[in-house]
Amino acid sequence: MIGAGDGGLPTLRIRKRVTLTDQLYGQILEQIVSGALKEGEKLPSEHQICDAFAVSRPVVREALRKLRDDGLIEARRGVGSFVRRRPPQGLIQFAPADSVAGLMRAIEARMTVEKATARYAAIRAGAEQIDRIEAALIALEASMRARAPSRDADFAFHLAVAEASGNEAFVTMLNATRESTERAIEVAQSITRGGSQARIERVMREHRQIFDAIAGRDADAAGLAMAYHLLQARQRITDHAREE
Amino acid sequence: MIGAGDGGLPTLRIRKRVTLTDQLYGQILEQIVSGALKEGEKLPSEHQICDAFAVSRPVVREALRKLRDDGLIEARRGVGSFVRRRPPQGLIQFAPADSVAGLMRAIEARMTVEKATARYAAIRAGAEQIDRIEAALIALEASMRARAPSRDADFAFHLAVAEASGNEAFVTMLNATRESTERAIEVAQSITRGGSQARIERVMREHRQIFDAIAGRDADAAGLAMAYHLLQARQRITDHAREE
Amino acid sequence: MIGAGDGGLPTLRIRKRVTLTDQLYGQILEQIVSGALKEGEKLPSEHQICDAFAVSRPVVREALRKLRDDGLIEARRGVGSFVRRRPPQGLIQFAPADSVAGLMRAIEARMTVEKATARYAAIRAGAEQIDRIEAALIALEASMRARAPSRDADFAFHLAVAEASGNEAFVTMLNATRESTERAIEVAQSITRGGSQARIERVMREHRQIFDAIAGRDADAAGLAMAYHLLQARQRITDHAREE
Amino acid sequence: MIGAGDGGLPTLRIRKRVTLTDQLYGQILEQIVSGALKEGEKLPSEHQICDAFAVSRPVVREALRKLRDDGLIEARRGVGSFVRRRPPQGLIQFAPADSVAGLMRAIEARMTVEKATARYAAIRAGAEQIDRIEAALIALEASMRARAPSRDADFAFHLAVAEASGNEAFVTMLNATRESTERAIEVAQSITRGGSQARIERVMREHRQIFDAIAGRDADAAGLAMAYHLLQARQRITDHAREE
Repeated sequence: MIGAGDGGLPTLRIRKRVTLTDQLYGQILEQIVSGALKEGEKLPSEHQICDAFAVSRPVVREALRKLRDDGLIEARRGVGSFVRRRPPQGLIQFAPADSVAGLMRAIEARMTVEKATARYAAIRAGAEQIDRIEAALIALEASMRARAPSRDADFAFHLAVAEASGNEAFVTMLNATRESTERAIEVAQSITRGGSQARIERVMREHRQIFDAIAGRDADAAGLAMAYHLLQARQRITDHAREE
Repeated sequence: MIGAGDGGLPTLRIRKRVTLTDQLYGQILEQIVSGALKEGEKLPSEHQICDAFAVSRPVVREALRKLRDDGLIEARRGVGSFVRRRPPQGLIQFAPADSVAGLMRAIEARMTVEKATARYAAIRAGAEQIDRIEAALIALEASMRARAPSRDADFAFHLAVAEASGNEAFVTMLNATRESTERAIEVAQSITRGGSQARIERVMREHRQIFDAIAGRDADAAGLAMAYHLLQARQRITDHAREE
Repeated sequence: MIGAGDGGLPTLRIRKRVTLTDQLYGQILEQIVSGALKEGEKLPSEHQICDAFAVSRPVVREALRKLRDDGLIEARRGVGSFVRRRPPQGLIQFAPADSVAGLMRAIEARMTVEKATARYAAIRAGAEQIDRIEAALIALEASMRARAPSRDADFAFHLAVAEASGNEAFVTMLNATRESTERAIEVAQSITRGGSQARIERVMREHRQIFDAIAGRDADAAGLAMAYHLLQARQRITDHAREE
Repeated sequence: MIGAGDGGLPTLRIRKRVTLTDQLYGQILEQIVSGALKEGEKLPSEHQICDAFAVSRPVVREALRKLRDDGLIEARRGVGSFVRRRPPQGLIQFAPADSVAGLMRAIEARMTVEKATARYAAIRAGAEQIDRIEAALIALEASMRARAPSRDADFAFHLAVAEASGNEAFVTMLNATRESTERAIEVAQSITRGGSQARIERVMREHRQIFDAIAGRDADAAGLAMAYHLLQARQRITDHAREE
């Protein structure tokens, strides 16, 4: 069932055409990561960016909005945009820079969808489905303890929760954005791998909390633990300072 | 962009294999709609259903859970399950009975996803995107006034909101469940078409409220209006008594 | 239990000192309702308002923000604030103008709190508590049919839902804002009373939906129906055009 | 303003009459904490509890439901209730056992209310209000580093967030449940004080995340960080195993 769209055939993994917005996002991101644009530094004006990249105003505005939503730049009214935060090297080392905007969007969408899957799983999961979530969790924890976190175990954990939600439409949705999700997991894990032992333990703890809440049949706690985990993942990916 | 999965090729519309659970759901549903099982009547026991349909206990349990979640039957602890509500004829006239469980699941998933798209659209939509949502709304309203509600205009409205959310992953997700969604729209519209003028006006009002909240930049109101509209759609589909 | 704070004695109803912000809000509101400031008209600048009312800049900003949040004015970046909507006469006829900002805030807070009480009531209410909610609903409906909607029946309905939530802290919270809530109910009812039959039926329908969802044990639907009802109440209070 | 109900006089702190339900909850809790009832052990039947405590069936049911909602016992259908988790000694050492049910309810209600205050604060807080939240945070952190966590600094932090929400009704609501909240903070801090350095750092980190999200104007992250913090507080209070 996994890997096929709703009523569709299994899909080939062809890399999606990248929008101009996401290309521009990627180029600005690269300059922030490399330090060509430093924290606190002012970005060129919208007008200057239009000219330099030969793109239209709406494209520039959307790219800046996405950088802002991701916490990388901030706007000061009537003054311009400034670099707020320098993400870790890993962010563009493990994913093409022009894929990062899409990858961050996938995490945002998953915060909505997986909060719901975790809630429903706490209410509806059968004993066998709980077991499958736990098995994925144990595999993930083993790989993390060995400092070789498994992308497949991580995705399997999230998919097992979705399958336990009793609503296949959620599974279809997660699979439809699987490519971005797997890439997001790879980036996050690559950054975690290089991080402290404390960080690895935090990530393990976050997954364990999701499972405990589902197994304990606490829907509010399960939804919250899932959304919090994805929020943390988003911050680990973008925030250099947190990369202890 | 629409119609293709994330990183995939446009998908053929092949009808998905129907699970045993959804087949069983469909058969019980048919008996409720036909009146073979009357409102208030007790269903056969889980054990009897296992035997009659030659399916396993977990299949029976899941089918009953879905019927319960959809408000069609209710469980009385230690006694059994009873028919709670008789849905309108249109429900199985305009969709195969074994597709109804999936169609209801798609609406549930959309309540989660589209609440988020409406919220984000209220915050992020550009002027051009607001115009596109309004254009779809006007086309939908015109078709409804002519008592020939347009499925495509309805889907276009919801998709325009998703596109205005500034997050393509949501668009990908809605497209991935497009088949079920379009069928749900068809069923709801067929029932609305046969309903009172008051009902048609209520449905128009619901869409108008979503648009007003997005255009008015009120994220809370937009998310709420969208979720409420889908909740009402779900009830119109299943509740005979409301079919005024 | 009702009427007493958490751990406190029953409180005297003394009218709270009105903040400068809410006084300023009330004065601008009066001019919008009277038509001295017309729909679409530009408000004086922040600076001019500071001078005219002899208040500080933060007071002006907060008053304008509240008017904006309530949908009465809108800001156009770099241009100023404009009247967006003219509320019905009833809004300042049945409540002191300087109490309206607080009354709107109480509704906003109740959207959060009562969404939760309705959800928990659907999960936890005992049979007796369901009966009490229904009794309050029937009394409210009778008063509405007689075109003399009862404030006490309305408040009793909302309080019965809170009591069925199984969490007394919510009851304490609703009672702590009882004065504003009762005034908001009075204003809404006075406007409803003067409205069309269709409007009265819509308000009855909203309450009925909340009850049905709680009695049907559907937590998502119950929370949604409650939040939607309060959103509608807020709009009925402020939106002249909707006052059919 | 703080300490007074909406439109009321400052309230005396008189200890509220304890309901039979909460007294029964407290007595069962004491037996779980003392080990008289061990983890995994079966509780007496509802009938036996009715007789032993001379209370009615509804009182027993509500007490058991609250214990279940708080994760202390679990029901196995058709078998009975079993002790699920033994809370730390501190829970009844620092608060009367018959106040614990109310204290847990206050945390649950705050999860709803403070998620909203954190969201609105991220959207609406002025610079001065952000400063006040940060000042409370710094005072709280200083007290925690000195291993003497300050109850007043903790409450002040949460109140400063509510005041920054731009909605006084939320402040009124928090003050109305202040007694329970302060007691919950005392219990949580007493347990934290006796815990590991890692635990103290986690609690500090949770507060810091709430502040960062508000200061960064990220409403979703702020609401989530606040709800997560209160969820963790609830678990720290009740879960012996987590008391590292």
